[in-house]
Amino acid sequence: MKPIQVGLLGIGTVGSGVFGVLQRNHDEIRRRAGREIAITMVADLDETRAHAVVGEQAKVVKDARDVIANPDIDVVVELIGGYGIAKALVLEAIAAGKHVVTANKALLAVHGSEIFKAAAEKGVMVAYEAAVAGGIPIIKALREGLTANQIQWIAGIINGTTNFILSEMRDKGLDFDVVLKEAQRLGYAEADPTFDIEGVDAAHKATLMSAIAFGVPVQFDKAYVEGITKLSSVDIKYAEQLGYRIKLLGITKRAEKGIELRVHPSLVPAKRLIANVEGAMNAVVVHGDAVGTTLYYGKGAGSEPTASAVIADLVDIARLDGADASHRVPPLAFQSSTLREAGQDLPVLPMAEVVTSYYLRMRVADEAGVLAKVTGILANAGISIDAVLQREADEVGGEGSTQTDLIILTHDTREGDMDKALTEIQGLPTVLAPITRIRKEELN
Amino acid sequence: MKPIQVGLLGIGTVGSGVFGVLQRNHDEIRRRAGREIAITMVADLDETRAHAVVGEQAKVVKDARDVIANPDIDVVVELIGGYGIAKALVLEAIAAGKHVVTANKALLAVHGSEIFKAAAEKGVMVAYEAAVAGGIPIIKALREGLTANQIQWIAGIINGTTNFILSEMRDKGLDFDVVLKEAQRLGYAEADPTFDIEGVDAAHKATLMSAIAFGVPVQFDKAYVEGITKLSSVDIKYAEQLGYRIKLLGITKRAEKGIELRVHPSLVPAKRLIANVEGAMNAVVVHGDAVGTTLYYGKGAGSEPTASAVIADLVDIARLDGADASHRVPPLAFQSSTLREAGQDLPVLPMAEVVTSYYLRMRVADEAGVLAKVTGILANAGISIDAVLQREADEVGGEGSTQTDLIILTHDTREGDMDKALTEIQGLPTVLAPITRIRKEELN
Repeated sequence: MKPIQVGLLGIGTVGSGVFGVLQRNHDEIRRRAGREIAITMVADLDETRAHAVVGEQAKVVKDARDVIANPDIDVVVELIGGYGIAKALVLEAIAAGKHVVTANKALLAVHGSEIFKAAAEKGVMVAYEAAVAGGIPIIKALREGLTANQIQWIAGIINGTTNFILSEMRDKGLDFDVVLKEAQRLGYAEADPTFDIEGVDAAHKATLMSAIAFGVPVQFDKAYVEGITKLSSVDIKYAEQLGYRIKLLGITKRAEKGIELRVHPSLVPAKRLIANVEGAMNAVVVHGDAVGTTLYYGKGAGSEPTASAVIADLVDIARLDGADASHRVPPLAFQSSTLREAGQDLPVLPMAEVVTSYYLRMRVADEAGVLAKVTGILANAGISIDAVLQREADEVGGEGSTQTDLIILTHDTREGDMDKALTEIQGLPTVLAPITRIRKEELN
Repeated sequence: MKPIQVGLLGIGTVGSGVFGVLQRNHDEIRRRAGREIAITMVADLDETRAHAVVGEQAKVVKDARDVIANPDIDVVVELIGGYGIAKALVLEAIAAGKHVVTANKALLAVHGSEIFKAAAEKGVMVAYEAAVAGGIPIIKALREGLTANQIQWIAGIINGTTNFILSEMRDKGLDFDVVLKEAQRLGYAEADPTFDIEGVDAAHKATLMSAIAFGVPVQFDKAYVEGITKLSSVDIKYAEQLGYRIKLLGITKRAEKGIELRVHPSLVPAKRLIANVEGAMNAVVVHGDAVGTTLYYGKGAGSEPTASAVIADLVDIARLDGADASHRVPPLAFQSSTLREAGQDLPVLPMAEVVTSYYLRMRVADEAGVLAKVTGILANAGISIDAVLQREADEVGGEGSTQTDLIILTHDTREGDMDKALTEIQGLPTVLAPITRIRKEELN
């Protein structure tokens, strides 16, 4: 069988990894794929860098469109990133009848439905294992491994930068700003870390998993996104005392009236495996009605782990190139004719409708009756309390302090009800600072 | 597209699960598969039980061969188990041109090569996701998700019964026999638990993963198999003090001169995720050269988790039924024409050639010079020591005791060298009881 010819758009960290792993494991990959996978063309603005990576093994061009225009190229691998030129190139590659592999979660979380539709019309595949959780084959697990299940929820540590920061904050008792600088120095955080620390990157990935799990289109615009920039190390410490760790989770859940799709810091019981995922590692927990709880763990980023996912897609494509569409796995797991419209019967719920439990921390006056007032307001709102931790004033504010921290864990509550109760509690004269509220997930 | 028609051979725990989940999630599965999956025929010696499960929805017969003989049946699901009649039926189903799905690790670990060859000649698929680690899609991860990688090693908790027993022994400080009885009472262990507690079941599964990982035929006969029956709770306690847990691991590893394939209790650092997999849960760690370390966790047994895997196979088959063989994933991951012969360039190594580290416990006389003698013998054998724990004699044997426990952790050693050194140490007059030796894996 003739080699499948691949053109890379962009040969930075991931592109070099793809090229290098395909070379190193050439024989093994060919024995699996039944067909040679050959990168024959590479486009990069920095042609010198590209030449340095590929040598004489592939043609180097500056203009990505030269790759797309080459009739010998079967698959275009888009590793440029972002929503801009990447979108145009992916759509042009599809229009030219090329299969596409991409690691671009931002692009797919926003324009995925349009891209998948174009691919279906043209009869080509769009594969994106590398877009979520790097080297972990989570897209394959969701789309193929768990097809028997009604997926009930997914919760993942799907951003290595923030997990590294949170791990360091806990380990060393340091504050966010300090650890961020350290992470930047070590290369775990980018110079502009906004997409990571504000939860946007995790939300892109959660959006893709949500669509795959529930048979809905990608709806990044409906995702609730909250990052870790406001997390205080004191909350990490109190959470620890209560038997929890704080992780930035991307969550999507099937609820009675729709789907939850949200990214925010969450308390997770310390005994759960996912609570023990440290540093820049990723892990995704998937709960299906038949299989129960499963977990997938590995490196979520980096040159070769990401290349591992890109090449797995290339092997799938090498196998199914030329096969009828009915023999292929639909890009969002469900046959496109059966995808729900956005909003139809399974809408993404507004946060006020989300049901979860909470960790609350309030700086209060150390005087009689405060706890009674706070818990009274919660009780009136129908919010039941799971645990209370009240610190000695001296411990919190030093000798003779008249303030203390009151920490409350609640049972499941509608977020709208919690919002109202917190507004009321915040208004109490004995509540001395803005209340900290962190959601809590049991994940069992 | 017409429904794919499935015949079940055996409708016990797993069969009922398959039937039930396919019914409950009928719409969702069809939306994914693009085709209806219909169980139209069921064979079971206990026809009454079969009728009770399937009602009027499927034809019930006593003789499995009636299912195989039915020209309308596209896929035969073998859930009988064992090497005997199951083998004949699987081969007959293949000969009749049926695809086969099986959860039968024993059959495949011993006769897999013959079965896969027959299937290839007949142009049908044999799928067995349920045969390893129940609901965890580990076969798919290995065969498809990690195709870019040279797999370097796999280590898995792939037998729930033994993991339950070890968890209980640690939690409650109880001895093996006591916990086994409890496990039998709770249904976690069978009336005849031999295959589980002696490591045979885990070895079947490790054999399959080994073949998939390294492109070799199944070679159960070459596997080293050691169960947990001789494990003492005192070793679990000492391991804990040294920062380790003891797990029954199925291990396969690529070494310089061949493949390691072995099942035995192993110390694992307590901080690894897999060390924290408790109760009857399963987990498999896979280390690939590109992706690094990945882990897959979930329920390894039970009606619906196993059904989840069987149905995932059915969906794959529903998609690829009618497709050319080149579009399908080879049963052992590598194209059959490229599978190595047994023994050829990657033989399964004898245990004497295996390199690993060790936990040693010796009951010794509490007198001067014992430690020096023991460590001298190890040093002469080129075995280097990682840690030593010597207990106060009073703690071990009670007030006035003249015996104590000497615990040694070694660095990596050829097992043959360790055997020789231990024979010599055992011969010392100050070593008062048979030495306990447990292998240790760092798994990083």
